[in-house]
Amino acid sequence: MEVLKIVNQIKSKRSFLCVGLDVDLEKIPKFLLDKDDPIFEFNKSIIDNTHMHCIAYKLNIAFYEAYGIKGWKALEKTINYINKNYTEIFTIADAKRGDIGNTSRMYAKSFFEQLNFDSITVNPYMGRDSVEPFLEYNDKNTIILALTSNEGSKDLQLISTANDYVFMDLIKSSKTWNNSKNLMYVIGATKTEYLEEIRKIIPDNFLLIPGIGAQGGDLKEVCEKAINHKVGIIINSSRGIIYSGNDEKFAQAAEKEAISLKKQMEEILIDSKLI
Amino acid sequence: MEVLKIVNQIKSKRSFLCVGLDVDLEKIPKFLLDKDDPIFEFNKSIIDNTHMHCIAYKLNIAFYEAYGIKGWKALEKTINYINKNYTEIFTIADAKRGDIGNTSRMYAKSFFEQLNFDSITVNPYMGRDSVEPFLEYNDKNTIILALTSNEGSKDLQLISTANDYVFMDLIKSSKTWNNSKNLMYVIGATKTEYLEEIRKIIPDNFLLIPGIGAQGGDLKEVCEKAINHKVGIIINSSRGIIYSGNDEKFAQAAEKEAISLKKQMEEILIDSKLI
Repeated sequence: MEVLKIVNQIKSKRSFLCVGLDVDLEKIPKFLLDKDDPIFEFNKSIIDNTHMHCIAYKLNIAFYEAYGIKGWKALEKTINYINKNYTEIFTIADAKRGDIGNTSRMYAKSFFEQLNFDSITVNPYMGRDSVEPFLEYNDKNTIILALTSNEGSKDLQLISTANDYVFMDLIKSSKTWNNSKNLMYVIGATKTEYLEEIRKIIPDNFLLIPGIGAQGGDLKEVCEKAINHKVGIIINSSRGIIYSGNDEKFAQAAEKEAISLKKQMEEILIDSKLI
Repeated sequence: MEVLKIVNQIKSKRSFLCVGLDVDLEKIPKFLLDKDDPIFEFNKSIIDNTHMHCIAYKLNIAFYEAYGIKGWKALEKTINYINKNYTEIFTIADAKRGDIGNTSRMYAKSFFEQLNFDSITVNPYMGRDSVEPFLEYNDKNTIILALTSNEGSKDLQLISTANDYVFMDLIKSSKTWNNSKNLMYVIGATKTEYLEEIRKIIPDNFLLIPGIGAQGGDLKEVCEKAINHKVGIIINSSRGIIYSGNDEKFAQAAEKEAISLKKQMEEILIDSKLI
Protein backbone atom coordinates (compact mmCIF):
# COMPACT_ATOMS: atom_id res chain seq x y z
CA MET A 1 0.00 0.00 0.00
CA GLU A 2 1.27 3.46 -0.80
CA VAL A 3 2.47 5.31 2.26
CA LEU A 4 0.40 8.32 1.22
CA LYS A 5 -2.74 6.21 1.49
CA ILE A 6 -1.81 5.17 5.01
CA VAL A 7 -1.08 8.78 5.98
CA ASN A 8 -4.39 9.96 4.54
CA GLN A 9 -6.23 7.28 6.44
CA ILE A 10 -4.51 8.29 9.68
CA LYS A 11 -5.52 11.91 9.13
CA SER A 12 -9.12 11.16 8.31
CA LYS A 13 -9.63 8.63 11.10
CA ARG A 14 -7.52 10.69 13.53
CA SER A 15 -5.86 7.48 14.68
CA PHE A 16 -2.73 5.49 14.00
CA LEU A 17 -3.94 2.41 15.83
CA CYS A 18 -3.40 -1.14 14.62
CA VAL A 19 -5.53 -3.84 16.22
CA GLY A 20 -3.74 -7.16 16.62
CA LEU A 21 -5.92 -10.17 15.92
CA ASP A 22 -4.09 -12.79 18.00
CA VAL A 23 -7.01 -15.11 18.48
CA ASP A 24 -6.66 -17.79 21.12
CA LEU A 25 -9.61 -20.18 21.47
CA GLU A 26 -8.92 -20.40 25.19
CA LYS A 27 -9.44 -16.67 25.61
CA ILE A 28 -12.42 -15.81 23.42
CA PRO A 29 -15.95 -15.70 24.90
CA LYS A 30 -17.21 -19.23 25.52
CA PHE A 31 -20.49 -18.82 23.61
CA LEU A 32 -18.55 -18.46 20.34
CA LEU A 33 -17.17 -21.98 20.63
CA ASP A 34 -20.50 -23.40 19.47
CA LYS A 35 -20.25 -21.61 16.13
CA ASP A 36 -18.94 -23.23 12.95
CA ASP A 37 -15.83 -21.07 12.83
CA PRO A 38 -15.33 -19.40 16.23
CA ILE A 39 -12.06 -17.69 15.22
CA PHE A 40 -13.61 -15.98 12.21
CA GLU A 41 -16.78 -15.07 14.09
CA PHE A 42 -14.68 -13.46 16.81
CA ASN A 43 -12.58 -11.55 14.27
CA LYS A 44 -15.59 -10.41 12.27
CA SER A 45 -17.26 -8.90 15.32
CA ILE A 46 -14.04 -7.21 16.46
CA ILE A 47 -13.42 -5.82 12.95
CA ASP A 48 -16.99 -4.59 12.47
CA ASN A 49 -16.78 -2.75 15.77
CA THR A 50 -13.28 -1.28 15.54
CA HIS A 51 -12.55 -0.51 11.86
CA MET A 52 -13.58 3.15 12.21
CA HIS A 53 -11.11 3.69 15.04
CA CYS A 54 -8.05 1.92 13.65
CA ILE A 55 -6.12 2.05 10.40
CA ALA A 56 -4.60 -1.43 10.36
CA TYR A 57 -5.14 -5.00 11.43
CA LYS A 58 -2.22 -7.24 12.28
CA LEU A 59 -2.88 -10.97 12.09
CA ASN A 60 -0.43 -12.96 14.15
CA ILE A 61 0.01 -16.02 11.96
CA ALA A 62 1.15 -18.30 14.81
CA PHE A 63 -2.29 -18.14 16.36
CA TYR A 64 -3.87 -19.45 13.15
CA GLU A 65 -1.23 -22.06 12.34
CA ALA A 66 -1.69 -23.51 15.82
CA TYR A 67 -5.11 -24.78 14.71
CA GLY A 68 -3.87 -26.38 11.48
CA ILE A 69 -6.17 -26.36 8.46
CA LYS A 70 -9.07 -24.98 10.53
CA GLY A 71 -6.81 -22.08 11.50
CA TRP A 72 -5.74 -21.42 7.90
CA LYS A 73 -9.36 -21.31 6.83
CA ALA A 74 -10.12 -18.74 9.53
CA LEU A 75 -7.07 -16.75 8.43
CA GLU A 76 -8.20 -16.74 4.79
CA LYS A 77 -11.73 -15.78 5.70
CA THR A 78 -10.53 -12.96 7.93
CA ILE A 79 -8.16 -11.35 5.43
CA ASN A 80 -10.74 -11.72 2.66
CA TYR A 81 -13.38 -10.13 4.87
CA ILE A 82 -11.18 -7.10 5.57
CA ASN A 83 -10.08 -6.75 1.95
CA LYS A 84 -13.65 -6.91 0.73
CA ASN A 85 -15.39 -4.69 3.25
CA TYR A 86 -12.80 -2.23 4.50
CA THR A 87 -10.55 -1.51 1.56
CA GLU A 88 -8.84 1.45 3.22
CA ILE A 89 -7.39 -0.73 5.99
CA PHE A 90 -3.66 -1.58 5.95
CA THR A 91 -3.25 -5.32 6.59
CA ILE A 92 -0.20 -6.86 8.23
CA ALA A 93 0.71 -10.55 8.22
CA ASP A 94 2.68 -10.83 11.43
CA ALA A 95 4.59 -13.84 10.24
CA LYS A 96 8.22 -12.99 11.07
CA ARG A 97 9.40 -15.08 8.13
CA GLY A 98 12.80 -14.98 6.42
CA ASP A 99 14.89 -17.63 4.67
CA ILE A 100 17.28 -18.09 1.74
CA GLY A 101 16.16 -16.43 -1.49
CA ASN A 102 14.12 -19.17 -3.14
CA THR A 103 12.32 -19.91 0.13
CA SER A 104 11.60 -16.28 0.99
CA ARG A 105 10.13 -16.04 -2.50
CA MET A 106 7.65 -18.79 -1.56
CA TYR A 107 6.69 -16.98 1.64
CA ALA A 108 6.20 -13.74 -0.30
CA LYS A 109 3.96 -15.59 -2.75
CA SER A 110 1.98 -17.05 0.11
CA PHE A 111 1.29 -13.82 2.01
CA PHE A 112 1.29 -11.26 -0.82
CA GLU A 113 -0.36 -13.26 -3.61
CA GLN A 114 -2.35 -16.11 -2.09
CA LEU A 115 -3.62 -14.22 0.96
CA ASN A 116 -3.26 -10.69 -0.42
CA PHE A 117 -1.89 -8.97 2.67
CA ASP A 118 -0.54 -5.42 2.22
CA SER A 119 2.53 -6.18 4.29
CA ILE A 120 4.43 -8.84 6.20
CA THR A 121 6.82 -8.80 9.15
CA VAL A 122 10.18 -10.32 8.26
CA ASN A 123 13.01 -11.55 10.47
CA PRO A 124 16.30 -10.14 9.14
CA TYR A 125 18.74 -12.60 10.77
CA MET A 126 19.69 -14.07 7.37
CA GLY A 127 20.42 -10.66 5.84
CA ARG A 128 19.82 -8.85 2.59
CA ASP A 129 19.12 -11.71 0.19
CA SER A 130 16.56 -13.16 2.59
CA VAL A 131 14.56 -9.91 2.64
CA GLU A 132 14.82 -8.69 -0.94
CA PRO A 133 12.34 -11.24 -2.38
CA PHE A 134 9.68 -9.51 -0.26
CA LEU A 135 10.87 -6.03 -1.27
CA GLU A 136 10.48 -6.91 -4.95
CA TYR A 137 6.73 -6.42 -4.60
CA ASN A 138 6.39 -2.72 -5.32
CA ASP A 139 2.87 -2.34 -4.02
CA LYS A 140 3.58 -4.15 -0.74
CA ASN A 141 5.44 -3.21 2.43
CA THR A 142 8.05 -5.30 4.19
CA ILE A 143 8.35 -4.71 7.91
CA ILE A 144 11.61 -5.98 9.36
CA LEU A 145 12.17 -6.75 13.01
CA ALA A 146 14.70 -4.24 14.26
CA LEU A 147 14.43 -3.82 18.04
CA THR A 148 11.76 -5.91 19.70
CA SER A 149 9.99 -5.23 23.00
CA ASN A 150 10.84 -8.49 24.74
CA GLU A 151 13.53 -9.23 27.33
CA GLY A 152 15.44 -11.40 24.84
CA SER A 153 16.13 -8.39 22.60
CA LYS A 154 19.31 -7.91 24.60
CA ASP A 155 20.65 -11.35 23.67
CA LEU A 156 21.33 -10.43 20.05
CA GLN A 157 19.83 -7.13 18.89
CA LEU A 158 21.56 -5.15 21.63
CA ILE A 159 25.01 -6.70 21.37
CA SER A 160 27.58 -3.90 20.96
CA THR A 161 29.45 -3.76 17.69
CA ALA A 162 32.42 -1.69 16.54
CA ASN A 163 30.15 1.22 15.63
CA ASP A 164 26.90 0.72 17.44
CA TYR A 165 24.47 -2.08 18.30
CA VAL A 166 23.62 -5.06 16.10
CA PHE A 167 20.10 -3.75 15.39
CA MET A 168 21.43 -0.30 14.44
CA ASP A 169 24.02 -1.77 12.07
CA LEU A 170 21.18 -3.75 10.57
CA ILE A 171 18.97 -0.69 10.07
CA LYS A 172 21.87 1.15 8.45
CA SER A 173 22.68 -1.66 6.06
CA SER A 174 18.99 -2.21 5.20
CA LYS A 175 18.96 1.24 3.63
CA THR A 176 21.22 -0.07 0.85
CA TRP A 177 18.91 -2.97 -0.07
CA ASN A 178 16.98 -2.98 -3.35
CA ASN A 179 13.63 -1.21 -2.99
CA SER A 180 14.42 -0.22 0.60
CA LYS A 181 11.84 2.54 0.31
CA ASN A 182 9.23 -0.22 0.88
CA LEU A 183 10.72 -1.01 4.29
CA MET A 184 9.08 -0.39 7.62
CA TYR A 185 10.62 -1.36 10.96
CA VAL A 186 9.36 -3.04 14.12
CA ILE A 187 10.53 -1.11 17.17
CA GLY A 188 9.17 -2.22 20.57
CA ALA A 189 7.40 0.40 22.66
CA THR A 190 9.53 -0.52 25.66
CA LYS A 191 12.66 0.71 23.87
CA THR A 192 12.08 4.49 23.88
CA GLU A 193 15.67 5.29 24.80
CA TYR A 194 16.81 4.30 21.31
CA LEU A 195 14.08 6.06 19.32
CA GLU A 196 15.86 9.34 18.71
CA GLU A 197 18.95 7.61 17.34
CA ILE A 198 16.75 5.41 15.15
CA ARG A 199 14.96 8.45 13.76
CA LYS A 200 18.30 10.00 12.81
CA ILE A 201 19.00 7.01 10.56
CA ILE A 202 15.52 6.43 9.18
CA PRO A 203 13.68 9.74 9.50
CA ASP A 204 11.02 8.90 6.91
CA ASN A 205 10.16 5.22 7.24
CA PHE A 206 7.12 4.03 9.08
CA LEU A 207 7.69 2.26 12.40
CA LEU A 208 5.36 -0.48 13.60
CA ILE A 209 5.36 -0.26 17.37
CA PRO A 210 3.98 -3.10 19.50
CA GLY A 211 4.29 -3.33 23.25
CA ILE A 212 1.86 -0.66 24.43
CA GLY A 213 -0.28 -1.93 27.30
CA ALA A 214 0.32 -5.58 28.25
CA GLN A 215 4.06 -5.29 27.59
CA GLY A 216 4.48 -1.96 29.43
CA GLY A 217 5.26 0.67 26.78
CA ASP A 218 4.12 4.29 27.28
CA LEU A 219 2.14 5.76 24.36
CA LYS A 220 2.96 9.44 24.90
CA GLU A 221 6.67 8.92 25.34
CA VAL A 222 6.86 6.69 22.26
CA CYS A 223 5.01 9.21 20.11
CA GLU A 224 7.06 12.20 21.23
CA LYS A 225 10.23 10.50 20.07
CA ALA A 226 9.04 8.59 17.00
CA ILE A 227 6.45 10.70 15.23
CA ASN A 228 7.59 12.43 12.03
CA HIS A 229 6.15 14.87 9.50
CA LYS A 230 4.13 12.05 7.86
CA VAL A 231 3.12 10.64 11.27
CA GLY A 232 5.39 7.67 10.56
CA ILE A 233 4.17 5.38 13.31
CA ILE A 234 1.59 2.65 13.65
CA ILE A 235 0.92 1.58 17.22
CA ASN A 236 -0.28 -1.96 17.75
CA SER A 237 -2.40 -3.22 20.59
CA SER A 238 -3.62 -6.82 20.62
CA ARG A 239 -4.65 -8.41 23.90
CA GLY A 240 -5.44 -5.02 25.49
CA ILE A 241 -8.22 -4.50 22.96
CA ILE A 242 -9.56 -7.83 21.77
CA TYR A 243 -9.85 -9.46 25.19
CA SER A 244 -11.29 -6.49 27.07
CA GLY A 245 -14.65 -8.23 27.33
CA ASN A 246 -15.56 -11.90 27.54
CA ASP A 247 -19.34 -12.04 27.30
CA GLU A 248 -21.74 -11.35 24.43
CA LYS A 249 -20.74 -7.71 24.45
CA PHE A 250 -17.04 -8.44 23.89
CA ALA A 251 -16.94 -6.50 20.62
CA GLN A 252 -18.42 -3.42 22.24
CA ALA A 253 -15.85 -3.68 25.03
CA ALA A 254 -13.12 -3.89 22.39
CA GLU A 255 -14.58 -0.86 20.64
CA LYS A 256 -14.48 1.10 23.89
CA GLU A 257 -10.79 0.29 24.32
CA ALA A 258 -10.04 1.20 20.71
CA ILE A 259 -11.85 4.53 21.13
CA SER A 260 -9.89 5.29 24.28
CA LEU A 261 -6.58 4.74 22.45
CA LYS A 262 -7.81 6.63 19.40
CA LYS A 263 -8.65 9.66 21.57
CA GLN A 264 -5.15 9.70 22.99
CA MET A 265 -3.77 9.45 19.47
CA GLU A 266 -6.02 12.23 18.22
CA GLU A 267 -4.66 14.53 20.93
CA ILE A 268 -1.11 13.64 19.99
CA LEU A 269 -1.82 14.33 16.29
CA ILE A 270 -3.31 17.71 17.17
CA ASP A 271 -0.41 18.61 19.47
CA SER A 272 2.01 17.64 16.70
CA LYS A 273 0.06 19.83 14.24
CA LEU A 274 -0.48 16.84 11.96
CA ILE A 275 -4.25 17.24 11.84
CA MET B 1 13.88 -37.47 19.69
CA GLU B 2 16.69 -38.70 21.91
CA VAL B 3 20.10 -38.01 20.45
CA LEU B 4 21.08 -41.62 21.12
CA LYS B 5 18.30 -42.78 18.82
CA ILE B 6 19.59 -40.52 16.04
CA VAL B 7 23.14 -41.76 16.54
CA ASN B 8 22.02 -45.39 16.45
CA GLN B 9 20.11 -44.77 13.26
CA ILE B 10 23.17 -43.17 11.68
CA LYS B 11 25.30 -46.14 12.62
CA SER B 12 22.86 -48.74 11.35
CA LYS B 13 22.05 -46.93 8.09
CA ARG B 14 25.67 -45.83 7.65
CA SER B 15 24.42 -42.40 6.62
CA PHE B 16 23.82 -39.00 8.18
CA LEU B 17 21.83 -37.69 5.25
CA CYS B 18 18.72 -35.55 5.58
CA VAL B 19 16.54 -35.23 2.49
CA GLY B 20 14.88 -31.83 2.15
CA LEU B 21 11.32 -32.00 0.86
CA ASP B 22 11.04 -28.51 -0.68
CA VAL B 23 8.30 -29.31 -3.13
CA ASP B 24 7.64 -26.79 -5.86
CA LEU B 25 4.77 -27.63 -8.23
CA GLU B 26 6.68 -25.98 -11.05
CA LYS B 27 9.57 -28.39 -10.65
CA ILE B 28 7.96 -31.79 -10.06
CA PRO B 29 7.34 -34.18 -12.96
CA LYS B 30 4.39 -32.98 -15.02
CA PHE B 31 2.48 -36.27 -14.94
CA LEU B 32 1.95 -35.84 -11.18
CA LEU B 33 -0.07 -32.69 -11.68
CA ASP B 34 -3.10 -34.76 -12.72
CA LYS B 35 -3.24 -36.48 -9.33
CA ASP B 36 -5.49 -35.37 -6.48
CA ASP B 37 -2.63 -34.25 -4.29
CA PRO B 38 0.52 -33.90 -6.43
CA ILE B 39 2.66 -32.63 -3.56
CA PHE B 40 1.90 -35.60 -1.34
CA GLU B 41 2.24 -38.09 -4.21
CA PHE B 42 5.65 -36.65 -5.02
CA ASN B 43 6.76 -36.80 -1.37
CA LYS B 44 5.44 -40.32 -0.87
CA SER B 45 7.43 -41.66 -3.82
CA ILE B 46 10.58 -39.83 -2.74
CA ILE B 47 10.22 -41.09 0.83
CA ASP B 48 9.48 -44.69 -0.15
CA ASN B 49 12.60 -44.70 -2.32
CA THR B 50 15.04 -42.91 -0.03
CA HIS B 51 14.15 -43.76 3.60
CA MET B 52 16.73 -46.54 3.79
CA HIS B 53 19.53 -44.18 2.77
CA CYS B 54 18.73 -41.17 4.95
CA ILE B 55 18.04 -40.62 8.62
CA ALA B 56 15.95 -37.47 8.46
CA TYR B 57 13.47 -35.55 6.34
CA LYS B 58 13.33 -31.77 6.47
CA LEU B 59 10.08 -30.20 5.29
CA ASN B 60 10.53 -26.61 4.24
CA ILE B 61 7.27 -25.11 5.46
CA ALA B 62 7.35 -22.14 3.04
CA PHE B 63 6.82 -24.49 0.12
CA TYR B 64 3.62 -25.83 1.67
CA GLU B 65 2.28 -22.51 2.94
CA ALA B 66 2.65 -21.10 -0.57
CA TYR B 67 -0.26 -23.31 -1.64
CA GLY B 68 -2.57 -22.30 1.20
CA ILE B 69 -4.94 -24.91 2.61
CA LYS B 70 -4.04 -27.39 -0.14
CA GLY B 71 -0.42 -27.04 0.93
CA TRP B 72 -1.21 -27.55 4.61
CA LYS B 73 -3.12 -30.71 3.78
CA ALA B 74 -0.12 -32.04 1.85
CA LEU B 75 2.13 -31.10 4.78
CA GLU B 76 -0.08 -32.98 7.27
CA LYS B 77 -0.34 -36.02 5.03
CA THR B 78 3.42 -36.10 4.50
CA ILE B 79 4.41 -35.85 8.17
CA ASN B 80 1.74 -38.39 9.13
CA TYR B 81 2.98 -40.75 6.44
CA ILE B 82 6.55 -40.60 7.73
CA ASN B 83 5.52 -40.91 11.38
CA LYS B 84 3.35 -43.92 10.62
CA ASN B 85 5.59 -45.85 8.25
CA TYR B 86 9.15 -44.92 9.13
CA THR B 87 9.19 -44.39 12.87
CA GLU B 88 12.97 -44.32 13.12
CA ILE B 89 13.22 -41.19 10.93
CA PHE B 90 14.06 -37.82 12.55
CA THR B 91 11.65 -35.20 11.21
CA ILE B 92 12.48 -31.52 10.91
CA ALA B 93 9.97 -28.70 10.38
CA ASP B 94 12.13 -26.16 8.60
CA ALA B 95 9.98 -23.26 9.69
CA LYS B 96 12.51 -20.72 11.01
CA ARG B 97 9.93 -19.40 13.47
CA GLY B 98 10.57 -17.27 16.56
CA ASP B 99 8.50 -14.61 18.32
CA ILE B 100 7.69 -13.28 21.79
CA GLY B 101 6.97 -15.95 24.40
CA ASN B 102 3.22 -16.41 24.04
CA THR B 103 3.51 -16.51 20.24
CA SER B 104 6.44 -18.91 20.14
CA ARG B 105 4.34 -21.11 22.40
CA MET B 106 1.65 -21.21 19.68
CA TYR B 107 4.22 -22.14 17.03
CA ALA B 108 5.59 -24.88 19.28
CA LYS B 109 2.08 -26.21 19.76
CA SER B 110 1.52 -26.16 16.02
CA PHE B 111 4.65 -28.02 14.95
CA PHE B 112 5.28 -30.26 17.98
CA GLU B 113 1.71 -31.14 18.98
CA GLN B 114 -0.58 -30.63 15.96
CA LEU B 115 1.85 -31.89 13.34
CA ASN B 116 4.07 -34.01 15.61
CA PHE B 117 7.46 -33.11 14.14
CA ASP B 118 10.52 -34.21 16.13
CA SER B 119 12.20 -30.84 15.70
CA ILE B 120 11.85 -27.34 14.32
CA THR B 121 14.27 -24.73 13.04
CA VAL B 122 14.02 -21.47 15.01
CA ASN B 123 15.28 -17.99 14.21
CA PRO B 124 17.06 -16.61 17.29
CA TYR B 125 16.93 -12.87 16.45
CA MET B 126 14.52 -12.21 19.35
CA GLY B 127 16.71 -13.99 21.90
CA ARG B 128 16.32 -16.37 24.80
CA ASP B 129 12.64 -15.93 25.68
CA SER B 130 11.64 -16.44 22.05
CA VAL B 131 13.38 -19.84 21.91
CA GLU B 132 12.69 -21.30 25.36
CA PRO B 133 9.01 -22.12 24.65
CA PHE B 134 10.30 -24.62 22.06
CA LEU B 135 12.98 -25.96 24.42
CA GLU B 136 10.37 -26.75 27.06
CA TYR B 137 9.40 -29.84 25.06
CA ASN B 138 11.77 -32.41 26.50
CA ASP B 139 11.26 -35.02 23.82
CA LYS B 140 11.75 -32.54 20.93
CA ASN B 141 14.77 -30.78 19.46
CA THR B 142 15.07 -27.10 18.70
CA ILE B 143 17.45 -26.22 15.91
CA ILE B 144 18.49 -22.56 15.96
CA LEU B 145 19.90 -20.72 12.97
CA ALA B 146 23.47 -19.86 13.83
CA LEU B 147 25.51 -19.31 10.68
CA THR B 148 23.62 -19.73 7.42
CA SER B 149 25.02 -20.60 4.01
CA ASN B 150 23.67 -17.60 2.08
CA GLU B 151 25.45 -14.41 1.05
CA GLY B 152 23.35 -12.35 3.48
CA SER B 153 24.87 -14.15 6.47
CA LYS B 154 27.50 -11.42 6.50
CA ASP B 155 24.92 -8.66 7.00
CA LEU B 156 24.16 -9.62 10.57
CA GLN B 157 25.55 -12.98 11.68
CA LEU B 158 29.11 -12.05 10.80
CA ILE B 159 29.18 -8.55 12.27
CA SER B 160 32.19 -8.28 14.60
CA THR B 161 31.47 -7.80 18.29
CA ALA B 162 33.72 -6.98 21.24
CA ASN B 163 34.62 -10.64 21.66
CA ASP B 164 33.80 -12.40 18.45
CA TYR B 165 31.05 -12.46 15.80
CA VAL B 166 27.35 -12.00 16.42
CA PHE B 167 26.58 -15.66 15.64
CA MET B 168 29.33 -16.86 18.00
CA ASP B 169 28.09 -14.66 20.84
CA LEU B 170 24.67 -16.11 20.18
CA ILE B 171 25.91 -19.71 20.35
CA LYS B 172 27.72 -18.96 23.59
CA SER B 173 24.71 -17.36 25.21
CA SER B 174 22.39 -20.12 23.99
CA LYS B 175 24.28 -22.55 26.22
CA THR B 176 22.83 -20.80 29.28
CA TRP B 177 19.20 -21.16 28.15
CA ASN B 178 16.82 -23.54 29.92
CA ASN B 179 17.01 -27.05 28.47
CA SER B 180 19.83 -26.04 26.13
CA LYS B 181 20.78 -29.71 25.89
CA ASN B 182 17.88 -29.98 23.40
CA LEU B 183 19.52 -27.47 21.06
CA MET B 184 20.95 -28.20 17.66
CA TYR B 185 22.44 -25.55 15.37
CA VAL B 186 22.17 -24.72 11.67
CA ILE B 187 25.61 -24.10 10.21
CA GLY B 188 25.85 -23.60 6.45
CA ALA B 189 28.18 -25.92 4.54
CA THR B 190 29.78 -22.93 2.83
CA LYS B 191 31.13 -21.70 6.17
CA THR B 192 33.81 -24.30 6.89
CA GLU B 193 36.35 -21.74 8.09
CA TYR B 194 34.33 -21.23 11.28
CA LEU B 195 33.65 -24.88 12.08
CA GLU B 196 36.63 -25.54 14.33
CA GLU B 197 35.86 -22.53 16.50
CA ILE B 198 32.21 -23.56 16.65
CA ARG B 199 33.15 -27.07 17.77
CA LYS B 200 35.25 -25.63 20.61
CA ILE B 201 32.13 -23.98 22.03
CA ILE B 202 29.59 -26.71 21.32
CA PRO B 203 31.58 -29.94 21.03
CA ASP B 204 28.59 -32.21 21.68
CA ASN B 205 25.54 -30.67 20.00
CA PHE B 206 24.29 -31.86 16.66
CA LEU B 207 24.77 -29.50 13.71
CA LEU B 208 22.27 -29.41 10.84
CA ILE B 209 24.27 -28.54 7.77
CA PRO B 210 22.55 -27.41 4.58
CA GLY B 211 24.32 -26.04 1.54
CA ILE B 212 25.99 -29.13 0.09
CA GLY B 213 25.54 -29.26 -3.67
CA ALA B 214 23.40 -26.47 -5.13
CA GLN B 215 24.81 -23.94 -2.68
CA GLY B 216 28.42 -25.00 -3.13
CA GLY B 217 29.52 -26.63 0.15
CA ASP B 218 32.09 -29.44 0.15
CA LEU B 219 31.04 -32.61 2.01
CA LYS B 220 34.47 -33.93 2.95
CA GLU B 221 35.78 -30.64 4.25
CA VAL B 222 32.64 -30.05 6.30
CA CYS B 223 32.80 -33.50 7.86
CA GLU B 224 36.48 -33.32 8.73
CA LYS B 225 35.88 -30.22 10.78
CA ALA B 226 32.45 -30.85 12.22
CA ILE B 227 32.17 -34.54 13.01
CA ASN B 228 32.42 -35.51 16.69
CA HIS B 229 32.49 -38.71 18.75
CA LYS B 230 28.70 -39.08 18.38
CA VAL B 231 28.85 -38.16 14.68
CA GLY B 232 27.11 -34.88 15.58
CA ILE B 233 26.20 -33.79 12.08
CA ILE B 234 23.21 -34.12 9.82
CA ILE B 235 23.83 -33.06 6.23
CA ASN B 236 20.86 -31.83 4.28
CA SER B 237 20.39 -31.99 0.54
CA SER B 238 17.13 -30.86 -1.03
CA ARG B 239 17.07 -29.88 -4.71
CA GLY B 240 20.14 -31.99 -5.48
CA ILE B 241 18.20 -35.13 -4.59
CA ILE B 242 14.50 -34.58 -5.15
CA TYR B 243 14.79 -32.97 -8.58
CA SER B 244 17.43 -35.27 -10.03
CA GLY B 245 14.83 -36.78 -12.36
CA ASN B 246 11.73 -35.34 -13.96
CA ASP B 247 9.97 -38.27 -15.61
CA GLU B 248 8.14 -41.28 -14.22
CA LYS B 249 11.38 -42.61 -12.78
CA PHE B 250 12.04 -39.45 -10.71
CA ALA B 251 11.98 -41.37 -7.41
CA GLN B 252 14.57 -43.85 -8.68
CA ALA B 253 16.75 -40.95 -9.80
CA ALA B 254 16.41 -39.43 -6.34
CA GLU B 255 17.33 -42.76 -4.78
CA LYS B 256 20.46 -42.92 -6.91
CA GLU B 257 21.53 -39.48 -5.69
CA ALA B 258 20.78 -40.42 -2.09
CA ILE B 259 22.85 -43.61 -2.42
CA SER B 260 25.74 -41.68 -3.88
CA LEU B 261 25.77 -39.29 -0.91
CA LYS B 262 25.26 -42.14 1.54
CA LYS B 263 28.32 -43.95 0.15
CA GLN B 264 30.46 -40.88 0.67
CA MET B 265 29.12 -40.62 4.20
CA GLU B 266 29.75 -44.28 4.90
CA GLU B 267 33.41 -43.82 3.93
CA ILE B 268 33.69 -40.81 6.20
CA LEU B 269 32.15 -42.74 9.10
CA ILE B 270 34.60 -45.61 8.55
CA ASP B 271 37.57 -43.24 8.29
CA SER B 272 36.45 -41.55 11.51
CA LYS B 273 36.16 -44.97 13.19
CA LEU B 274 32.53 -44.30 14.03
CA ILE B 275 31.27 -47.49 12.40
